Amino acid sequence: MSTSPKRVLVISGPNLDRLGKREPSIYGTTTLDDIHKAVEEVARSEGVDVSFLQSNHEGELVTAIGRAADGGFHGIVMNGAGLTHTSVVLHDAIRASGLPVVEVHITNTAAREPFRHHSITAGACLGTVAGFGPASYVLGLLGLVYHLQQREN
Amino acid sequence: MSTSPKRVLVISGPNLDRLGKREPSIYGTTTLDDIHKAVEEVARSEGVDVSFLQSNHEGELVTAIGRAADGGFHGIVMNGAGLTHTSVVLHDAIRASGLPVVEVHITNTAAREPFRHHSITAGACLGTVAGFGPASYVLGLLGLVYHLQQREN
Amino acid sequence: MSTSPKRVLVISGPNLDRLGKREPSIYGTTTLDDIHKAVEEVARSEGVDVSFLQSNHEGELVTAIGRAADGGFHGIVMNGAGLTHTSVVLHDAIRASGLPVVEVHITNTAAREPFRHHSITAGACLGTVAGFGPASYVLGLLGLVYHLQQREN
Amino acid sequence: MSTSPKRVLVISGPNLDRLGKREPSIYGTTTLDDIHKAVEEVARSEGVDVSFLQSNHEGELVTAIGRAADGGFHGIVMNGAGLTHTSVVLHDAIRASGLPVVEVHITNTAAREPFRHHSITAGACLGTVAGFGPASYVLGLLGLVYHLQQREN
Amino acid sequence: MSTSPKRVLVISGPNLDRLGKREPSIYGTTTLDDIHKAVEEVARSEGVDVSFLQSNHEGELVTAIGRAADGGFHGIVMNGAGLTHTSVVLHDAIRASGLPVVEVHITNTAAREPFRHHSITAGACLGTVAGFGPASYVLGLLGLVYHLQQREN
Amino acid sequence: MSTSPKRVLVISGPNLDRLGKREPSIYGTTTLDDIHKAVEEVARSEGVDVSFLQSNHEGELVTAIGRAADGGFHGIVMNGAGLTHTSVVLHDAIRASGLPVVEVHITNTAAREPFRHHSITAGACLGTVAGFGPASYVLGLLGLVYHLQQREN
Amino acid sequence: MSTSPKRVLVISGPNLDRLGKREPSIYGTTTLDDIHKAVEEVARSEGVDVSFLQSNHEGELVTAIGRAADGGFHGIVMNGAGLTHTSVVLHDAIRASGLPVVEVHITNTAAREPFRHHSITAGACLGTVAGFGPASYVLGLLGLVYHLQQREN
Amino acid sequence: MSTSPKRVLVISGPNLDRLGKREPSIYGTTTLDDIHKAVEEVARSEGVDVSFLQSNHEGELVTAIGRAADGGFHGIVMNGAGLTHTSVVLHDAIRASGLPVVEVHITNTAAREPFRHHSITAGACLGTVAGFGPASYVLGLLGLVYHLQQREN
Amino acid sequence: MSTSPKRVLVISGPNLDRLGKREPSIYGTTTLDDIHKAVEEVARSEGVDVSFLQSNHEGELVTAIGRAADGGFHGIVMNGAGLTHTSVVLHDAIRASGLPVVEVHITNTAAREPFRHHSITAGACLGTVAGFGPASYVLGLLGLVYHLQQREN
Amino acid sequence: MSTSPKRVLVISGPNLDRLGKREPSIYGTTTLDDIHKAVEEVARSEGVDVSFLQSNHEGELVTAIGRAADGGFHGIVMNGAGLTHTSVVLHDAIRASGLPVVEVHITNTAAREPFRHHSITAGACLGTVAGFGPASYVLGLLGLVYHLQQREN
Amino acid sequence: MSTSPKRVLVISGPNLDRLGKREPSIYGTTTLDDIHKAVEEVARSEGVDVSFLQSNHEGELVTAIGRAADGGFHGIVMNGAGLTHTSVVLHDAIRASGLPVVEVHITNTAAREPFRHHSITAGACLGTVAGFGPASYVLGLLGLVYHLQQREN
Amino acid sequence: MSTSPKRVLVISGPNLDRLGKREPSIYGTTTLDDIHKAVEEVARSEGVDVSFLQSNHEGELVTAIGRAADGGFHGIVMNGAGLTHTSVVLHDAIRASGLPVVEVHITNTAAREPFRHHSITAGACLGTVAGFGPASYVLGLLGLVYHLQQREN
Repeated sequence: MSTSPKRVLVISGPNLDRLGKREPSIYGTTTLDDIHKAVEEVARSEGVDVSFLQSNHEGELVTAIGRAADGGFHGIVMNGAGLTHTSVVLHDAIRASGLPVVEVHITNTAAREPFRHHSITAGACLGTVAGFGPASYVLGLLGLVYHLQQREN
Repeated sequence: MSTSPKRVLVISGPNLDRLGKREPSIYGTTTLDDIHKAVEEVARSEGVDVSFLQSNHEGELVTAIGRAADGGFHGIVMNGAGLTHTSVVLHDAIRASGLPVVEVHITNTAAREPFRHHSITAGACLGTVAGFGPASYVLGLLGLVYHLQQREN
Repeated sequence: MSTSPKRVLVISGPNLDRLGKREPSIYGTTTLDDIHKAVEEVARSEGVDVSFLQSNHEGELVTAIGRAADGGFHGIVMNGAGLTHTSVVLHDAIRASGLPVVEVHITNTAAREPFRHHSITAGACLGTVAGFGPASYVLGLLGLVYHLQQREN
Repeated sequence: MSTSPKRVLVISGPNLDRLGKREPSIYGTTTLDDIHKAVEEVARSEGVDVSFLQSNHEGELVTAIGRAADGGFHGIVMNGAGLTHTSVVLHDAIRASGLPVVEVHITNTAAREPFRHHSITAGACLGTVAGFGPASYVLGLLGLVYHLQQREN
Repeated sequence: MSTSPKRVLVISGPNLDRLGKREPSIYGTTTLDDIHKAVEEVARSEGVDVSFLQSNHEGELVTAIGRAADGGFHGIVMNGAGLTHTSVVLHDAIRASGLPVVEVHITNTAAREPFRHHSITAGACLGTVAGFGPASYVLGLLGLVYHLQQREN
Repeated sequence: MSTSPKRVLVISGPNLDRLGKREPSIYGTTTLDDIHKAVEEVARSEGVDVSFLQSNHEGELVTAIGRAADGGFHGIVMNGAGLTHTSVVLHDAIRASGLPVVEVHITNTAAREPFRHHSITAGACLGTVAGFGPASYVLGLLGLVYHLQQREN
Repeated sequence: MSTSPKRVLVISGPNLDRLGKREPSIYGTTTLDDIHKAVEEVARSEGVDVSFLQSNHEGELVTAIGRAADGGFHGIVMNGAGLTHTSVVLHDAIRASGLPVVEVHITNTAAREPFRHHSITAGACLGTVAGFGPASYVLGLLGLVYHLQQREN
Repeated sequence: MSTSPKRVLVISGPNLDRLGKREPSIYGTTTLDDIHKAVEEVARSEGVDVSFLQSNHEGELVTAIGRAADGGFHGIVMNGAGLTHTSVVLHDAIRASGLPVVEVHITNTAAREPFRHHSITAGACLGTVAGFGPASYVLGLLGLVYHLQQREN
Repeated sequence: MSTSPKRVLVISGPNLDRLGKREPSIYGTTTLDDIHKAVEEVARSEGVDVSFLQSNHEGELVTAIGRAADGGFHGIVMNGAGLTHTSVVLHDAIRASGLPVVEVHITNTAAREPFRHHSITAGACLGTVAGFGPASYVLGLLGLVYHLQQREN
Repeated sequence: MSTSPKRVLVISGPNLDRLGKREPSIYGTTTLDDIHKAVEEVARSEGVDVSFLQSNHEGELVTAIGRAADGGFHGIVMNGAGLTHTSVVLHDAIRASGLPVVEVHITNTAAREPFRHHSITAGACLGTVAGFGPASYVLGLLGLVYHLQQREN
Repeated sequence: MSTSPKRVLVISGPNLDRLGKREPSIYGTTTLDDIHKAVEEVARSEGVDVSFLQSNHEGELVTAIGRAADGGFHGIVMNGAGLTHTSVVLHDAIRASGLPVVEVHITNTAAREPFRHHSITAGACLGTVAGFGPASYVLGLLGLVYHLQQREN
Repeated sequence: MSTSPKRVLVISGPNLDRLGKREPSIYGTTTLDDIHKAVEEVARSEGVDVSFLQSNHEGELVTAIGRAADGGFHGIVMNGAGLTHTSVVLHDAIRASGLPVVEVHITNTAAREPFRHHSITAGACLGTVAGFGPASYVLGLLGLVYHLQQREN
């Protein structure tokens, strides 16, 4: 019987550190910190521990994903940003992690430029959530939590 | 000030009437009715009214989407099933509906056959949720509700 | 010597029942009924009988095209809407009908999304008219009438 | 020991209701009814019960395939006509049916237009027969019967 | 209030000077002059002035389109012939002209070789008419006139 | 009046000599000899003479097809194996043979690797049968016999 | 009985006026004039009249081809140069000319950049000769003469 | 030692004669003459002689490029406009000219329609400058001058 | 000084042994032997020795090409037939032979099915001749002889 | 009135630290330091402040671009090197930076391997300069300065 | 316990019989015999028996691979030469052989023409070695021996 | 005369630090350290010095390759992992390094997902070894050593 809370790593890829800081008329004023707070709140109400990582370096994302299970995480919510469409390395990291990973996108990538219509990483993931703005992170966390609960039963 | 509850139409496309009825070792024993009940429960707790439609006919889906706004719906959660990858007609219906539509998929289509990797309808939608099993419907509804609340404020 | 008037079937495909009813700022306020009236007026002045059919069901369009010759029609004006770009079945119906079919589009599909640049049905038709708004139907009818007169002589 | 006769559903897709009725110089004078009679005759000599369905509606074909096993059928012979090349929905219906399905085509589709060279549905079927004119149905039935007998032993 | 008649330039591209002069068994005996006369007749009944230009030189077509507005023309009917499928330069000329241009084709290009299925120029035009033989020019003129009248109101 | 029996050549391409000899858990234990016997039995009951040829050499298949008509054969049943997807030379041999050729495949090639989804030879054939295991040969023979009888009447 | 000599037009497209004039270490010192003389010599020995045209203007080539038959020519030898790979207009001119046209290239285009591997014009021609340096013109003329003689008998 | 000034030919392709004359709200009011003056000014300060050519005819551009070296020019700055994306003939003219050619574009073609993303001529050039508005010509001239000076040393 | 005559190997690939023997209404009655005689006659007048080889086996063609130089041949005229479009092995044999090889085709392959528009072998050859019927062999020989003479001088 | 000098960040991507250090016979002996000095000199004469960054890490480039505006820079000159053809992340960084970015390349990438013909980043930039060797940086800076001056007026 | 030595078949495909015999300045003077000797030497030191086969006939290679296991071989080292890129038949032979097959190439095919970048046979093999000249055979043998030893333990 | 031992750098790309640490049932229990030991052992017996580098950062790999020659290395064995299929930057680093680089892969990438079938880096390498498990590193080292010895002689 598992009584200790589930631990989830929330990863944000390149350029997401700039969210909400520039061009608020376009991207809104929600910052990545705001998203983290919203995620944390939901996580608390779901009884889940969350940690956050943002990096502009593919290599740091790969390392974090690779060490997540050893680090005690039960799953990952990841916004790979532009790497989503190009990174076989991230795909492999997800596969090798042994953890369920949920891919989230703030925008609906299917409604943007053609080079954003295909995700190289999604095929290695548990599932995807896209297009709900900052709420995509929260929905992704809920989906991951639901999956972890299901697997337990 | 909007005090009447939001109304959401939940649409399921071709073959989904068979869900859970055959090959339970593969698809599990969750039926579309089970999904509807789970969605209804969440809808109730969110203070949203939900109606359900399943059809194997593209034409019926188009008609339902086209009439949804006049019928008093504020948004749609739709699992287009196989039509997702082929139907320009559904794409146009979503565009013409004037409503936010959330595309949901039970499986992670990005991890299946190549002909399921591209969605023709997603580009006309608000967002997508895929890969969480029956919970994809629930997450899609939550995302839609969140969007409707945002728009109101 | 043919003294009875030519009969023409005017078919409108999926979503066209919504024309002019929603988002008038985008699509204008011309409804499909308005188009039918304009077509009828021109038909009368050309001495042609016209009948109208709109359906969101590919199957109904196929059936109507298949029975058109037996039903006494001499030609068809068809706006296949989104089916234009996907339906081999409509292509086959046109081929099998034994009638001249004119493909019409309200918008200039060549100036829209890439998936609207290719028509699967046009290759089975007599000709196409696109981009003149509701007038595309009228021009299509005139082209068909001209063709029928030519063939007679 | 199975003593009751095997039951087979023979499905014909869009436009096949027109077979033999128009342009006999091209398509011959064999109607779908003639094909059904020929199939029935062979079925009788093989001790198999056959039922027939023709529809121009993809949705009706999907429903029929989905219910075939519950309806007591042991297999399906299907001419998907133009849907063969476009319908992911039919592909899914065949997969979900739990029944062996044989795809038949009257013409040799490989010798026709390029858009008829690829079948979306064939990959979900037991096998295919194409190019023998109406006899394709009969050969498809024989192949299905042979398969059912093999499986029994 | 515009009381002076609208002026329309009718342009025919490469090879069209040979129309009807060779191989009458294939192309018929209608010459470009015959087409011009038919167009003129309709133009007169519509109260429109028409001028004609045929050239085998892309450069002359570009120059004519570029100068059309300054020359007092209100719109253009153009059969770009083979340039339709290759000429970015004509596309740009149409865009730059500031005039509505209607693309017309004598044959139904969608029913010919694959390299005629895509038009580079159509995306810059108001609309297209194809497949009605010489009557395509007349229909194109009518569509243009209709458009000019609409815009005026 | 044709009283002498029809003669059919049954050709099997590269690697088919190994059928049933290795990896019986995968391919079963049916050998090419077993198939030949089954075909012979059906041929006898249909009053047809059959001859067999297996070769791993494209050149020998081409020569045999080229000489088949002079050798008194009325038709060919051919399993081109891997050459099906690559050999323009076999395509040309079939075209040049002046005989009806039926293409057969033991497996359903449409359900295998993408490079087996397209047949270069099928377009030159009368028809195809695929996916019925060894029975594909028998069904192919029956289809050919039916065709020869039709042509005679 | 045809006693007057055959007349052949030899056309050279864009840039060929520069042949042999620049970079003799690469292109050699053979000029277009030298080629014309070599062609003339062979023409004389074959009893054929030849005329020459070089132009950098696609439009002039089109006009010349279009008027060739009326001008008394029985066939054309043409080096379309870079237009070979892009000009639908030249393709159409050849088709419309009613004359046999032989396409010649000085270099072996199949051994150069990929964009030179496909000829748009060759499909409208009688045949092609490429890779023999200036001799390609002479071989093309001989092939044309042979063809004209064959047709006469 | 070279004491006479370098001579540069500045070529502008189809439609550029219209620059600044129409739709000033979109294209600005800079005309080609204005650009020529700006180029001349910089040329003077760099001690370079410049000549200008604008043509809507591919053939004239080809001829000018072909004769440039004989005409005493040491290099070319060229805006091929729409021909950039289609003209193998211009590519060949540049190659054959024996001169360094700089390709310039007023707009950033990489940010426009996909058919403007590939340049057929750039591969034959010394270098490219795009996106700086009229200043692209000036930068291209400076780059060419720099190159000519480098080569001299 | 070379006084001994040049020796040329004339190779014909798969199916060409059937030329003229079947379907004379389509292919004419010219046999490969007739072609050989015509080639021999021209060879004699050019003072060249010719040897002939026809094979349906790619391997035999490869071996013959590989040994041609050691066997005293100075060049090859080859009609690779269907192998032209598929055989990297023939391409490599030509490259490795160290001899000039001329590719000939009886028909104009550019005017046939798309899969005959690309030659894999042509890029390894000296040049190509196509479309002149049996005369293609003769023209190919003349081109080869011309090349050998050029190289000698 | 802006009196403080403009500040420009000059970024060089992966491998450019090796410039001029190895294989001087191929790449010349100009080092990145030499380029920086040349850029600095021009910057001084234009009254612009320049800072330099070279990194082999995509992540560092992204971070630098993201912080450039906050760091007081008014524009960026960037040679993305190999990342140019693969990095959606850099594209997004440029978009998000809110600064004009000029893409520069030392070589003419259009004349190199096909995988260097398409730039993923250029579409997000102000303009591009390629092929002038080290001078591309200087021209890029001049273009940027010109743009900043224009915007100011 | 396996005490008898492992037996390995070393296969070389089309054209490799010519290795080192012609154009030594390009290919070096190493012959296939030299390679065989080097392989034999290493085989002896590894305690492995090797047999050699070279053939220009795909069919002979297929037959040899098919019979290798029955012939007592435990693995194959194969240089398929040009067949590597075209032969589905070889792919199938490798699959059907039940033996581990190592694909070797003398050159680094990834650095040659695009049509050599894809191997149809490699997907059916244990592994590949390419680019080490004749040593590729030796490395391939060592890799195979290592694999056979691993499997035994 | 070179008497000091050759030095080789062995590089492993992203995710390879996790090798053997997770999912031993799939990947086995061999760790990267185990591989390094095996490589070291062989290196010692070949009289070669080896150094090892693993990084998840493309930038670190680029830097290491760029500095390898200056650091005294004579060659590189590299497993680029997922970067193999996407990194133009690594390709350029290999090119610029001036060293022979051998690409190795533990698995047979040709037998995995399509996006692993093409290597962007291999074209810049000396050769490749794939599919032999950890032994691929050892074989790669042997191949490199062999190459270095060859070059010396």
